[in-house]
Amino acid sequence: MATVIDGKAVANTIRSEIADEVRLLSQKYGKVPGLAVVIVGNRKDSQSYVGMKRKACAELGIKSFDIDLPEQASEAEVIKQVHELNANPDVHGILVQLPLPKHINEDKVLTEISLEKDVDGFHPLNIGKLAMKGRDPLFLPCTPKACIELLSRSGVSIKGKKAVVVGRSNIVGLPASLLLLKEDATVTIVHSHTSQPESIIREADIVIAAARQPMMIKGKLDQTWSCSHRCWHKCC
Amino acid sequence: MATVIDGKAVANTIRSEIADEVRLLSQKYGKVPGLAVVIVGNRKDSQSYVGMKRKACAELGIKSFDIDLPEQASEAEVIKQVHELNANPDVHGILVQLPLPKHINEDKVLTEISLEKDVDGFHPLNIGKLAMKGRDPLFLPCTPKACIELLSRSGVSIKGKKAVVVGRSNIVGLPASLLLLKEDATVTIVHSHTSQPESIIREADIVIAAARQPMMIKGKLDQTWSCSHRCWHKCC
Repeated sequence: MATVIDGKAVANTIRSEIADEVRLLSQKYGKVPGLAVVIVGNRKDSQSYVGMKRKACAELGIKSFDIDLPEQASEAEVIKQVHELNANPDVHGILVQLPLPKHINEDKVLTEISLEKDVDGFHPLNIGKLAMKGRDPLFLPCTPKACIELLSRSGVSIKGKKAVVVGRSNIVGLPASLLLLKEDATVTIVHSHTSQPESIIREADIVIAAARQPMMIKGKLDQTWSCSHRCWHKCC
Repeated sequence: MATVIDGKAVANTIRSEIADEVRLLSQKYGKVPGLAVVIVGNRKDSQSYVGMKRKACAELGIKSFDIDLPEQASEAEVIKQVHELNANPDVHGILVQLPLPKHINEDKVLTEISLEKDVDGFHPLNIGKLAMKGRDPLFLPCTPKACIELLSRSGVSIKGKKAVVVGRSNIVGLPASLLLLKEDATVTIVHSHTSQPESIIREADIVIAAARQPMMIKGKLDQTWSCSHRCWHKCC
């Protein structure tokens, strides 16, 4: 029988835990976490993501720093903003919403974010530490972290399981694979050059589908259960 | 039919190519590459590896800088040597022979090597760039690079193949997996927590065995061919 993980319920639990932590920090130190979200241009999806992040900050007592730059902002201007946020002691995390307009080099901008404030965990040094045994990144990319969190809070153990990650983007697929490996899963990474991906996916205990195409992977309802956050788990 | 890759023959070809390059550099710029090899203590295997590296340098015209420290050398002394080599313009690459004695933190020492001289490619920033799409590390760890080189010089294409890496050490297994992924293989990483590794390995087109245990993986002679450098390839 398929069991659906209720992602929203898990999210609400986590948010209430965070609100408690923030309240404690505020009472004890008179300080709250500060999150800067930088958005360049008017992409509707990006606006909506950023809006949700800012709303969540407001609800949890996290101070939000809103940097909205116009579509024509130059790379130098974006980097200048990042440097100012790096230097601001009330800002503890910096998110630069991707994708940036085409005339801006994303890698260059992301590399400028202070390592201690790279809450997206996309800096190559963080990814390297995520990949390596015995090293720990300062921050984990949020979607892969959410997949693991959903599995763990649903009582699904990962150790020794066959996990298949579909997609290998720097943002989801790759860090999800590295995280599953750190959790001692046997990890296979499936991508656009994989022949017969279905046969590999059918063998998996855990599938994380991060191929940017919803419903690409379908399971029989009695074999698979899926969560709302791009993460499937086959009863094994 | 099994075909054995003659690793020594490939190595001799590569060495003669490098000797030509070094000669050209010397003629054109009056400079030769400089490689510093740092060894701490008297482990026989380490001494032998280091001896081979220094001999290879001498044969190819590469200037070798030999740093031999006693077993009791402190972490601070090793790091001081690394800093001196970082500052020496005639040294272009620094290898610190692992393992270091137990009282020395290897990660700490390796992180001190200037990124531009990290010819082992073990710095987390290099590993991060190796892992990420669209990024390239300055250097690749030598054993994984050798595996890929042996396959490529033997005319074995990697793109779209099922590759299984056995082991996930920072030195061989992990970077080998990341390198195969960059070459567009469908990569599975098998390790000590994998259940029924044989069944996964039997499905592979390419197996890189880096589990620190020779002869752990055996194939029927008519199904597999193996090279001398921990790298197996099944005719598919």
